[in-house]
This record gives sequence, structure tokens and C-alpha cells, in this order.
Amino acid sequence: MNAVPHLLQQAEQLSADVTRPIPGSRKIHVEGSRPDLRVPMREIALARTPTMFGGEENAALAVYDCSGPYTDPEATIHLARGLPPLRAQWIGERGDTQLLDGLSSAFGRQREDDPRLDAVRFGHRPQPRRALAGANVSQMHYAKNGIVTPEMEFIAIRENQRIEAIREAHLLRQHAGETFGANIQKVITPEFVRDEVARGRAIIPNNINHPESEPMIIGRNFLTKVNANIGNSAVSSGIAEEVEKLVWAIRWGADTVMDLSTGKHIHETREWILRNSPVPIGTVPIYQALEKVDGRAEELTWEIYRDTLIEQAEQGVDYFTIHAGVLLRYVPLTARRVTGIVSRGGSILAKWCLAHHKENFLYTHFEEICEIMKAYDVAFSLGDGLRPGSIADANDAAQFGELETLGELTKIAWKHDVQTMIEGPGHVPMQLIKENMDKQLRECGEAPFYTLGPLTTDIAPGYDHITSAIGAAMIGWFGTAMLCYVTPKEHLGLPNKQDVREGLMAYKIAAHAADLAKGHPGAQARDNAMSKARFEFRWEDQFNLGLDPERAREYHDETLPKDAHKTAHFCSMCGPHFCSMKITQDVRDYAAEHGMSEEAALSEGMAEKSKEFLEQGAQVYHKA
Amino acid sequence: MNAVPHLLQQAEQLSADVTRPIPGSRKIHVEGSRPDLRVPMREIALARTPTMFGGEENAALAVYDCSGPYTDPEATIHLARGLPPLRAQWIGERGDTQLLDGLSSAFGRQREDDPRLDAVRFGHRPQPRRALAGANVSQMHYAKNGIVTPEMEFIAIRENQRIEAIREAHLLRQHAGETFGANIQKVITPEFVRDEVARGRAIIPNNINHPESEPMIIGRNFLTKVNANIGNSAVSSGIAEEVEKLVWAIRWGADTVMDLSTGKHIHETREWILRNSPVPIGTVPIYQALEKVDGRAEELTWEIYRDTLIEQAEQGVDYFTIHAGVLLRYVPLTARRVTGIVSRGGSILAKWCLAHHKENFLYTHFEEICEIMKAYDVAFSLGDGLRPGSIADANDAAQFGELETLGELTKIAWKHDVQTMIEGPGHVPMQLIKENMDKQLRECGEAPFYTLGPLTTDIAPGYDHITSAIGAAMIGWFGTAMLCYVTPKEHLGLPNKQDVREGLMAYKIAAHAADLAKGHPGAQARDNAMSKARFEFRWEDQFNLGLDPERAREYHDETLPKDAHKTAHFCSMCGPHFCSMKITQDVRDYAAEHGMSEEAALSEGMAEKSKEFLEQGAQVYHKA
Repeated sequence: MNAVPHLLQQAEQLSADVTRPIPGSRKIHVEGSRPDLRVPMREIALARTPTMFGGEENAALAVYDCSGPYTDPEATIHLARGLPPLRAQWIGERGDTQLLDGLSSAFGRQREDDPRLDAVRFGHRPQPRRALAGANVSQMHYAKNGIVTPEMEFIAIRENQRIEAIREAHLLRQHAGETFGANIQKVITPEFVRDEVARGRAIIPNNINHPESEPMIIGRNFLTKVNANIGNSAVSSGIAEEVEKLVWAIRWGADTVMDLSTGKHIHETREWILRNSPVPIGTVPIYQALEKVDGRAEELTWEIYRDTLIEQAEQGVDYFTIHAGVLLRYVPLTARRVTGIVSRGGSILAKWCLAHHKENFLYTHFEEICEIMKAYDVAFSLGDGLRPGSIADANDAAQFGELETLGELTKIAWKHDVQTMIEGPGHVPMQLIKENMDKQLRECGEAPFYTLGPLTTDIAPGYDHITSAIGAAMIGWFGTAMLCYVTPKEHLGLPNKQDVREGLMAYKIAAHAADLAKGHPGAQARDNAMSKARFEFRWEDQFNLGLDPERAREYHDETLPKDAHKTAHFCSMCGPHFCSMKITQDVRDYAAEHGMSEEAALSEGMAEKSKEFLEQGAQVYHKA
Repeated sequence: MNAVPHLLQQAEQLSADVTRPIPGSRKIHVEGSRPDLRVPMREIALARTPTMFGGEENAALAVYDCSGPYTDPEATIHLARGLPPLRAQWIGERGDTQLLDGLSSAFGRQREDDPRLDAVRFGHRPQPRRALAGANVSQMHYAKNGIVTPEMEFIAIRENQRIEAIREAHLLRQHAGETFGANIQKVITPEFVRDEVARGRAIIPNNINHPESEPMIIGRNFLTKVNANIGNSAVSSGIAEEVEKLVWAIRWGADTVMDLSTGKHIHETREWILRNSPVPIGTVPIYQALEKVDGRAEELTWEIYRDTLIEQAEQGVDYFTIHAGVLLRYVPLTARRVTGIVSRGGSILAKWCLAHHKENFLYTHFEEICEIMKAYDVAFSLGDGLRPGSIADANDAAQFGELETLGELTKIAWKHDVQTMIEGPGHVPMQLIKENMDKQLRECGEAPFYTLGPLTTDIAPGYDHITSAIGAAMIGWFGTAMLCYVTPKEHLGLPNKQDVREGLMAYKIAAHAADLAKGHPGAQARDNAMSKARFEFRWEDQFNLGLDPERAREYHDETLPKDAHKTAHFCSMCGPHFCSMKITQDVRDYAAEHGMSEEAALSEGMAEKSKEFLEQGAQVYHKA
């Protein structure tokens, strides 16, 4: 039994490691209509503009923050105890759920009773909760009934990122976007959130058994979100490592995290992840179901799968990838593909269909699945089991056939008021990306699209975070609501902590580029603040405003390590003689000194003025 | 004088370091119409398909190769002597040039005569060459006169990448592209190359004093090219380090390299770079001119600049960035920008204009510059001195005003038969990118566009190779002929060797994604070969077909280090149970074993067949 102290020791050690504020920022909470509705944001403090550039104050900028209590110096982290259940009160007071005496799933009980698992079991599992008989506890159900939940209000505040402060700081200046038909709001209201959820255009993945989660929304009329996959396999990775990846993933901006574990201790790993996650957790239940039949796809049954759904729903998984669209008739369409079926879930179900020569049991039992989903508010992520695994296979009959079936299933899910998003892309060359988005919007009634990449070429193993960030930015612009990241290890191995960072940065860039291109209100504020800091040589502010302050500082210091250089009015790239920023300032100074507008200073064409400039401008390097 | 042996020692050491074949590839040469016309390519050998997947041979794939003799095991590299002058005979036999007794520029002669420079001087400078009086030696001039030069034939062979072999290997299957009006050919002929150069739609940057260069072409109807910037600054970097960056840059796929040095020994660094470069070298002559007046922009004169152009032209620089479009009237348009003028060259000229209150002397002396360009066949890269340095400043009046002037200058250059391309972007959000391309095509008569990125957001210092690869892929698709890379150090510091690699990989991806999206003939062949290798678990072939075989292998080995795993029929990500590729093979095998098409196997719906499959398919893991 000496593994018990081992994992607990690891957890204790990790609790210290993962608690780390982001440099230059502080955690703030914006309160809503009730004292327990406190929306976390990250506020980046900015320095005053140097006198030579005007000397004004620069207001702090609040940014969207997925990092949870780990970056809050006032929070105490004990991974072995989990995060506080911030939504528990909201869930409880709705009066439509009951606490269960124990786990409903046979498998869950079996794991609970197995003393050999004491070493790896999370020690403080909360009591599971389920809807009262006949009740539907999905946010979509509330929304359709006109109820604005605290979750919806939380989201409205969160999405706005204190836009009124952005306006006051004069950072709202922004190019008009091209929305491709999205319904972009100037300000997000709780009522707008409710309406979008009711229409099925957005989802709020938050299982009643995951009260630790901070509500967030996925829909094309909101900020573009990013998902990070973690999870061990039979080959590699342990529980502590996965929890660590979770915390790093949200630090670097993951809006949701999927636990794709396939090795042993799937159940226990998931419990550790859920109890410590402030972001929604998604899974692919068929992976675990397959483990239960020792990897023999043909032995999968509806009963085993159903028990797995309940097991995971009672742990608190927020969305399930369910490959109910892999129909028997689509499987042969993949036989002549260059890369066949590349989705793990898709291939498991294709194999089951072949073995039994029957229709996919997830399709035939879809309404029973809906019943489970609405009893816990688990959202569907309808899986694209036939997504293309190569440029050659993009947009083919198998892929688009499945998408049509997913559209049909969406309508069934909506009939049950079950929140639903649709998975998509894979490998798609640029000229074929928009067709995917347009077809998804049409077939699936604007249910949120959630796409892997797409990778825009096959030829760069080791760099697929980049091949796919290109496609992700574009499809995000066209209307995808959440982008599933790809790490540099794609096609090669399992991502480690650094790969998670690289993948997330590429995808935060893609998501933000998409928000800018759609003209999302306030999206350009951070760019504007960054560029103002850049122009004014406020180096610390540049680092802190960036997506990865630590990386930016480290790179700067490689060339110019001294602290003095962080206030230098030139960059290491050009040195003082070549600094274009300084010269622009000369243009401004010249005009200001002569009490005229810049335009007038030049258009009047006074040779005398240029002589003065020459005398005064000989020394362009202003000391701070 | 002990620096002399120091640099020579460094060069000798480096000569060994930089000579390194690319693993899994061999250098081949495809001969043209004359024995000295030998076009280098890199041939990637591929393994036979494993028996379980069909057992067929896979033909070797030839890919475009910029890496020069450094990757040829049969070449001997002596950096201190430079590369062989492969074009010398072609240039000489045209009979329109003369060898000069010495350098024509005052500055060049002064450096030549300064014994203090012995320590850093390249020791084997070739005799400079110039057009005979009144002659025009530009490829555009030949093209307009109907002459197909050996350079043009070389390019046609190079651009086709042995497309006939691709066809024979059944790798030509490709999605239709969206060309946005580009004139994409199925096969590139020497006559097509000539015609495009004559029309000004493409340029062949190859100064008669850079006979070491392997001809290449920049134009939107050819493969999208990539440029890498290197160069020291007053703050950092030495000669040996720059030569090393050059060699690594071309190894990783740079089609041209710009030497942006601004520190001391600019002249000598450039000589070392040119003599060892098989790719065209570009410079920004104003940087050196500014050094000659100790950084005081207002002291720049046409005479100093003119001498600099001749100095560099006689060294062999293939294209000059010339900011002749920064007109006095545009400078005030930048005063209210968030980031003013960010181009170094642009800001130098803006300052000169302000100081003298006169029109930009590059604009007023433009025709004299043309006379110099055509005497050496240096191409114009008309600089975008007013490019936007932030999302906020994108597509503004200053930027577009300058672009209109560049269009006017293009027509003047063409009147002199001087090859011309146009520089563009900077920071541009996605929804504004296409407007840039469309305006450039319209204003500049389809002269090739050469763009920096664009960066699609400002907020990711440390990751600007990615923010800009997104924009680069898109603008490449829309019609940009060459993409100027951005490294992760952008805005932060000078790139080192690893940054050059990261930047180039991001840009090779962008360029290739653009070629795929345009439907460039044969572009998808490498993707197809890669994906076939992936499906068949030919790991070594996957590494070798990638843009960076060393990185791919290293990442794979982190998870599965053993050699045995390189023939494993599963990936480290999923392990053997979850391998979707294997399951697809089951679909195929099932059909094949039953002597029927896959479609029939399934659509007939025979339960009996599925029973057989079950019996045979229980063991899906085929031993290799």
C-alpha cells in the first residue's frame, strides 16, 4: 500500500507547484446580483506613459481568466481535497435535484469497493446528485422556460470583460468585423445568454455534479473558446501528471479540458481532474467502455455503455463526445480513403457496426442517452467519427454524410432540451474550410461547432499546432464556437506540459484572431493596449499584456538581459540609431513644439521649421 | 591581428558543422538542355508498403530544395573560399557584361584598402562585373526580347519538381484550388517563365555578381516562396554567426535571405554571406548608408546612397529594398497612429523628409536608381516604409497612399526593364487581409507581392511566428508571391539559430498551405505521400517526408524511444487497442477477403459475413 502516501505526497508537492500568480496581474472578482456570484478576471496593471510620450495614466486592463483559484494568491490549494463547490448553492436552491446515497453505476460502485484502488482514489468524493424523477436540469430547459440562471448572469459578466472600463480607457477603437451572419452584440446581457441557450446556438457545459466549475459559454456569438486535451494512455502518463497538465492548461487559457485517458485508472484519474477543475471537463465515454471489454470493440453493449455514461455523469463530466453519427452505411465510404477512419471513437464504432452488421447502438439508443444527459445536465458533443485524417480525405461523402446525421440528432437532443454542440474538421486545406462551416450551420440549425484545427497540410509533423492554428483561426472567424487544440506532438506522441503550453498558445492566438476578425466588441482592446505599450517602450507592460508573459520576458532577456534595458527607449533588434518608434515620436514632438497639428507642420512647407527641427532633432535619443 | 586566424578558424570549424545531408534524403540533379544546367532537388526515399497493407513499392519523392551544396555529401565546403560560381558561364557567354579591374564604389575601395579590416575580410572576392555601357542585363530585359535564358529553363525544371514522376506514383490526386484569378499552370515551361517575367508578374533575383546562386522565381503563378531575415545589429551577433544562420536558414527552406545587418562590418559580413549563398540575397541599402553618416538620418545624401547601391551591387546583392514610396505628404498621416512608423527604412526616410522638408530623395532619383539596377540585374523590392505596426493601424491612409505610389514606381521600373516586387503587410487582422492583396494587384499591375506576415493580432510576443503564419497562409493563398518570415523573437530580440528554424517552419507551412489552397499542380503529392505513410505506419517515411525530419523523430522518440516502435503498427497516442488506422484496415481486409467491394460487403447486409469477420477480427493487431 505504499502507493497511497506516494500519490498524496505528489499531490501535496504539486499543490505548491501549481499555485502561482501570473506576473504583472492580479485576480479580481466582479460581483453580480448576489454576493455569491463573483466572476473572476485577471487585471493587468499598466505603468504610466513616460513623460516624453505624454505622461498619462494607463488604466488596468481586465482580461478573461480561465485559470481558476490557482493564480489567486488568496486561495489555498489542496489538490487532495479539491476546489470549493462554488455553484453548489445555485444548484441546490433550484429544488429540482436530489442527493443520492451512493453511486448509481455498477462500475462506479465496484471501483468504490475495491481496496486495491485506495492508493489512487481521490479521498473526498462529494455525494452525487441527480434530477428528481421527471425533472430536466439542463440550462437549455431553464432557458426555454424563460429562467435566467445565476450561471447565465455569471457568463454575461464574464464575456463582457468589463467593457465599460475598456471604453473609459479609450481602448475600444476597433475595425469593423466580418461576421458571416453571426449575431454579435455590443454588450452581452444575461437575457441574451438565456436566449442563445434556448435557441440552441450556445451551450453552458456544467454538470450538476461539477459545482467547482466557473460557468462559461460556447457559441458563435460569444468569445471563441479553446479546448485542451489531456489524458494518459496505456503507454504513458500517471494521475499526478494529468492533474498537473490540467492546471497548466487552464493557466495558459484552456476554456475546457477533455480527459482522453485510455490507460488503467481512467475512473480515478477523472475524479482527481474533476475535483480540481474550474473549467468544464469533457470525455469520450466509449474509451472507457472499451477498456471494460478489454479492448474488444465487438463486445461492447448498450448496457456497458449506459453504465459508463451514468458513472461519468455522477462524477461530474460536463460534456460527452458521442459518436452517434457513425452509421453503418457510412463505413464503406471510408474504405478508399487515404487514411480511413482516424477518430478513435469513430473507428471503435465502425468496428462494432461491422462485427454485428447492425446500426450503431449509440444511434439506436439516442433518446435513452438524452434521458441520462438531462438528469445531470451533461451536454452532447456529437462526435465526428469520420473526420478526415488527411488533406486528401477532406470534405468527402463519409464526412459530410455523418454531419447530416449529426444535424438530425441535434434536433432530437433539442426536443429533450439537451444542450448540444457538434464536432468537426481534422485535416482540411484552406479553400475547403468554409464549406465545412456553412454546411454545419445549415445542417445543425446553428448548434455550436467545435472543431479540431483543421490542419491545413499534412507535411509538418512536429509543427501541427501551427498547421492547425491557421485552419483554426479561419474556421473560428467563419463561426466555429470552440477550437480543439493540437499540440506539436500530434501524430507523434503524447503531449507533455510544454507541448500543452505550445498548443494552447497557438490556439489562444487563433481564437483571438477570430474574435478580432468577427469584430467581437472590445476584442481589440488588448491589442490596442499592447501596441500603445510597445510604442512607448513600456517593456514590462508588453510582457504582461501578452498571452505568455514569462516567455516574452525570457526572450527579451536573451538579447538584452539587463534591467536597465527594460526601460530603454529602443529595441534589441535595431539598436538606438534605427529605432523607428523614436522617429515617429520626433514627428509628433516637432508638431507639438511648434503649436500646430502634425499635418499643418508639414503641409505648410516651411523651410525654416525644418532647420529648427534639424537643430533640435540631432539628438533623437531622449533619456527617460 | 590575431582576429584573422580567429575568423578563419571559425570558418573552418563551421565548414564541417554546416555540411550535413538531410536524413532519409539524397541530393539529385535533374539535367536540362545543356550539361551545365543541373537543377538540384532532394529525393526522399520511401520504404515498401508492409504486406498487410498491400506490399507495393513506393516511389521516391523529389522535393524543392533550397539547401544548396551544404546537404550534398559529394560537395566540399570551404566557407572561407565560397561556393562554386555555377552561373558564371551563362552570364559570361551572353557577351553583354565586362569584368572590372576593381570596385567602382568609393566606399568599397576604401574598405578594400583598409588593413585594419584584414581580420574580417573575405579573402577570395571575385572580380566584379558590370553591364557594358548602354546594355541592360536584367532577366526582364531578356524576357521582353523573347530570350529564354538558362536561368529560366532552370526555374521551369525546378518548379515542376518532377511532376511526371508524381503522376506515375499516383500521388497527383488533388482538390481543386481557389486561385483568385492566378494563372496556375499544369506544367511550367521555360517559355511560361519567360512570359511571366516579361509581363512583370514574376522576378528572378540574380545579380550578375552573385553567380553562386541557384536561379529561383518569385511570382504568384509559381510556388509560394519564403524569405528569412538574418543580420547583426550594433547590439549583437558576429560574422561567423550570420554565415551559420544563412546555412541553417536554407537548410530549413529559405528561398531567399535578407541580410539586415546594421552593426559594424556590414560590408564584410555581406561579402561572406554572398559568397556562401546559393539563394538570392536581399538588403536594405539605407541601413548601411545611415551607418556611413553615423546614424544621422538628416545627413544622408543621394551621393552616399548611390555609392552604397553600387558597392552592394558589385558584391552581388540580388534585390534591394528601397523605400521610395515614403513621400513627404504621407508622413503626417502617421502622426495619429497607435504605433507610428515601424519600418526602420521608412522611419529613416521620414526623418530625412522632415529634416529637409523635401521630397524623399529615393523618389526624386528613382530613374537613376533604375540605371544602376539594370547594369547588374538587381531587382527592386519596393519597400513599405509605412506598413502598419499594430492591428489598429492596418489598412490606413498612410499605408494605402504609399502602396499607390509603389504602383506608380513599378511602372517606371518596368519602363527600364528592371525587375520589381512590392513589399507589404505588417499587422493586419484577418478580415482586412484580402483588401491588401486586391489593392496591390490593382495598383501594381500584378507585380509580385512580398509580405511580412501579416501578424493577425498584437497580443502574443514570443509567438509572432504563429500570429503571422496565419496571416501569411491567407495572403499567400490570395496571391502573395513571397512571404517574409517572422520569428518567435519578433518585437523582443534578435533571432538565434533555433528561432530561425521556428520561423522558417511556420512559414514553410504557410507557403505550402497556400499552394494547396491555390491548387498548385502537384502541391498535394507530398501530403498524399505523408498520409499514405502514416496510414501504413511507415514511421521512418513519415519523419523523412516532413518539413523537419529531425524534429519529428525526436518528438516520436520522447514517447516511444525504441527502434522497434518505429515499425510498430500503432501510435504512442492511443496504444494498440485504440488504433483507428488498424480498424480501417480491418474494413478493407474484410472486403478483400470476401472478394467483393467494400461497399457491397456492407450494403448487402449479410449477417453471416459479420459472423466471419468476428471470428477473424478478434485479433486485430497484426504482427509486422
